[in-house]
Amino acid sequence: MDFKTELKQYQNQIEQELEKYVRKEACPERILNESMEYSLMAGGKRLRPILVLVTYKLFKDNYEVCMPYAVAIEMIHNFSLIHDDLPAIDNDDIRHGKLTNHKKFNEATAILAGDGLLNNSYIVISEDLLNTSNKYELEKKLKVFNEFSNAVDRMIAGEYVDTEFEGKEISSEYLEYTHKNKTAALLKLCVRMGAILAGAEEKELIKLTDYADKIGLAFQIKDDILSVEGNELITGKPVGNDEAKGKCTYVSKYGLEKSKEILEEMTKDAIEIAEGFGNKAEFLKGLANYIKDRNK
Amino acid sequence: MDFKTELKQYQNQIEQELEKYVRKEACPERILNESMEYSLMAGGKRLRPILVLVTYKLFKDNYEVCMPYAVAIEMIHNFSLIHDDLPAIDNDDIRHGKLTNHKKFNEATAILAGDGLLNNSYIVISEDLLNTSNKYELEKKLKVFNEFSNAVDRMIAGEYVDTEFEGKEISSEYLEYTHKNKTAALLKLCVRMGAILAGAEEKELIKLTDYADKIGLAFQIKDDILSVEGNELITGKPVGNDEAKGKCTYVSKYGLEKSKEILEEMTKDAIEIAEGFGNKAEFLKGLANYIKDRNK
Repeated sequence: MDFKTELKQYQNQIEQELEKYVRKEACPERILNESMEYSLMAGGKRLRPILVLVTYKLFKDNYEVCMPYAVAIEMIHNFSLIHDDLPAIDNDDIRHGKLTNHKKFNEATAILAGDGLLNNSYIVISEDLLNTSNKYELEKKLKVFNEFSNAVDRMIAGEYVDTEFEGKEISSEYLEYTHKNKTAALLKLCVRMGAILAGAEEKELIKLTDYADKIGLAFQIKDDILSVEGNELITGKPVGNDEAKGKCTYVSKYGLEKSKEILEEMTKDAIEIAEGFGNKAEFLKGLANYIKDRNK
Repeated sequence: MDFKTELKQYQNQIEQELEKYVRKEACPERILNESMEYSLMAGGKRLRPILVLVTYKLFKDNYEVCMPYAVAIEMIHNFSLIHDDLPAIDNDDIRHGKLTNHKKFNEATAILAGDGLLNNSYIVISEDLLNTSNKYELEKKLKVFNEFSNAVDRMIAGEYVDTEFEGKEISSEYLEYTHKNKTAALLKLCVRMGAILAGAEEKELIKLTDYADKIGLAFQIKDDILSVEGNELITGKPVGNDEAKGKCTYVSKYGLEKSKEILEEMTKDAIEIAEGFGNKAEFLKGLANYIKDRNK
């Protein structure tokens, strides 16, 4: 199967899985639930949950086991998008070509919808833990829960630093810190969750963490590049958005050409690491190229 | 020991415990950490964590076991205060006689500090789960983690409904729904956490849940009464605040006199339930009276 077809299959699977968690009851907080659904089902790329599944599949086939963690991480990702888009933070009106949550609903609803998604991710994890009777499986999942909560903590810290330094000149050290926490921590978590749940050995875990670091950086740089030269009809975000806000990005720090060089280098490194896992890692190689070549 | 002395002792213990979770490192997100500390250590009454401890003590003495859950619930409580106070939600400037988080720092920081505290509560729980090797203890804690995440979900829903219906006439059914979710769910959780962790039997759990319902309602009504006739130098909140915002409260719905009657009744009921637990429940009885008679 070619990469694009496989990607689409995974995406469909994630969509179906997420759909199960959408609440449709006629309750007084119905609109809050609609607001969570609006963002969760807005058709993102689903890269994070897919990373969990495909890393697991390097080692074992029954990847349904990690579905709750794939769902949970997509909830976290969407919580962070809703809060980042708020007027007090990034003040964005458009995301995935649609109105951002607070524009579609209102600020109060968006704040609480973000809170709800963040918290829901832990409901999902707690349900899965309650349903796990095997001691060995439970041990792995408790480790995953701990890494999960710590990665979310890093993401929030990264978002804070990103906001705090908007419009200010920052050192490459700070740029790296922001990126490492805001974006990379969660991508790294996805890969580690898949590997830990599959019972990967420590040395494999280290290699995969390294892979995640490379694609994490590549992902961020590509995002920064798209913000400058992307097609907003395709990206679904206004071009020049980062620059207008005085965001310090890889492009503003190193220029477009140098940024593209680093992107190429990171992709090459990631593919090399993936090759160490043989035929089973074809998708991980494809994913690295996809991150580099995507136009949204 | 009289109730007030014992209460003070518990409060001091909680303060000391919370202090251990305050982050002081010189990191780029230092001010975010300060903002979390500012709210967490602002000197609330610590009723929620104390409820966890004293319920546990009805059955067992080594109540240090539930300290992580006491800390986690106080983090949740403070996350909810920070977000509720935001301009887009309740728009409050003063809390505990001090500037609210977004007034002291700024809105972006307050949003992220709330997110951070919400998420930190799960870091605390995940650490405790990782450190629990006894299978029977772990089972109880997993049940607690599940109830915890669901109660937080209810709290967020309650806050949403409260915000949504601000300035509108609502039915007593809706008033009850809001209260049940926004305030009572968390108080009930505290009592249940203590009892479950101590290995209480189902019939005791039911009685204690009932106790929590009574003091939960008493707590809310007293809050509504204080918002009308409290001394703002003592409450630390402006008098007439609820009314000015068109909040639907027990006082606006039933009037001051009827509200006080319900308060008396709920307190009496709670004390009766506590009496069923004998001498060990003296503090729970004192707590019911304290909630009724407090002036802040």
